[in-house]
Amino acid sequence: MRNIKLTIEYDGTDYCGWQTQNATRTKSIQQVIEEALSKVFQKKIALIGSGRTDSGVHACNQTANFKTDSRLSQDRIRSALNSYLPKDIVIKRVREVDGDFHARFRVKSKIYRYSILNAPAPSPFNRRYSLFIPYPLDLEKMKKAATYLKGRHNFKSFHRAMGKQKNFVRTIKKLEIIQRDEVIFFEIEAEGFLYHMVRIIVGTLLEVGRGRFRPGYVKEILKQKNRNLAGPTLPGRGLCLMEVKY
Amino acid sequence: MRNIKLTIEYDGTDYCGWQTQNATRTKSIQQVIEEALSKVFQKKIALIGSGRTDSGVHACNQTANFKTDSRLSQDRIRSALNSYLPKDIVIKRVREVDGDFHARFRVKSKIYRYSILNAPAPSPFNRRYSLFIPYPLDLEKMKKAATYLKGRHNFKSFHRAMGKQKNFVRTIKKLEIIQRDEVIFFEIEAEGFLYHMVRIIVGTLLEVGRGRFRPGYVKEILKQKNRNLAGPTLPGRGLCLMEVKY
Repeated sequence: MRNIKLTIEYDGTDYCGWQTQNATRTKSIQQVIEEALSKVFQKKIALIGSGRTDSGVHACNQTANFKTDSRLSQDRIRSALNSYLPKDIVIKRVREVDGDFHARFRVKSKIYRYSILNAPAPSPFNRRYSLFIPYPLDLEKMKKAATYLKGRHNFKSFHRAMGKQKNFVRTIKKLEIIQRDEVIFFEIEAEGFLYHMVRIIVGTLLEVGRGRFRPGYVKEILKQKNRNLAGPTLPGRGLCLMEVKY
Repeated sequence: MRNIKLTIEYDGTDYCGWQTQNATRTKSIQQVIEEALSKVFQKKIALIGSGRTDSGVHACNQTANFKTDSRLSQDRIRSALNSYLPKDIVIKRVREVDGDFHARFRVKSKIYRYSILNAPAPSPFNRRYSLFIPYPLDLEKMKKAATYLKGRHNFKSFHRAMGKQKNFVRTIKKLEIIQRDEVIFFEIEAEGFLYHMVRIIVGTLLEVGRGRFRPGYVKEILKQKNRNLAGPTLPGRGLCLMEVKY
């Protein structure tokens, strides 16, 4: 059997997320790609994603893999899949990989980006891909607060409870805040993330940026391990999975 | 009467253009803003735009003006209008201007930008705002061809016939081709444009870029004054009105 790795870009606006979790009106991205796979290969194929993205969250480079005994070339697989996919999901790359490659288990780290439009008026072009914040944000204070989050910490205050999770220790390898004209990007790299972790971290940094929290208060939030102390969970539309490293 | 100038950003995807020309299923942008004006000022108000944009064409800074005897502040007008407008139309600025300012008659020049996504695969994020071209484009040849279009010429070969127009002489003040990663921007400034002129010019430059036309053939197209010699009219979604100068 050949093992095929896909690199996928999608606009998550109209989907319930990467994976179907409950009964929803909208399809999941995984489901739509699996439907295209079954049309191309004329049989049911299970697609393994690098991990879930939530409802409305986008991806520039989501990764997934599947097995097939078809002899179709990589280019043919890509163009055939894209011809069946809707315009908001695109297969960017198709690569044949080692048989033991697994899109989820082999992940070394992931990079997410959260985009804020910090301008006097919202933008029709960015409305699906960023959160609009009209009030001024103090970039230096947010950067200062971010330094306390980098590294290995218990992020219990920065996650949404789901089931009986016990281990809240994660390592943030990178947390950069970049301003480009009226858009502020928050880029976060970690080996693994807790549920809603990026959206709560950025929500907390915005509280610092608008002066509601002192930068040093972030240390206290980490220490207390209490979700209620951190900032709000920001909407999914500002979030994009930028890269999955193996 | 106060004379109010608006600066407007819109995603033109779901509209029939700035102005209603024939019976269409979709509304025009002007019509939607006039409906918002009538809600804010409790009377019918005529809005004068800087000029038309076609169906599907976007604007970062369209301009328009209207008269009112209301005492509402500029900020109040902006936030009231935006509260009635759909998310794909935003009033960015409201300024009280001289009584004799006219959004169309006072235009000195306009800048349009056409965006090409030149990449192996289309992008879900750019699909509403650019034309996807998978084949390689020779930037240097396109820049060479563009030099022949700059300046004052008869652009009859680069327009779509509409009614009994007689004067096809226009002056292109700027025609720049800028590559930023996988996106190529064509920025064109002129005092006035013929119908479909930007979209035919860029369509012609793409023929040069892919090697179908020599750069010097553009001179011949200008000379022959024959629309059939130029390249195709590109779709409206790649086009954006960037600036209106007064």
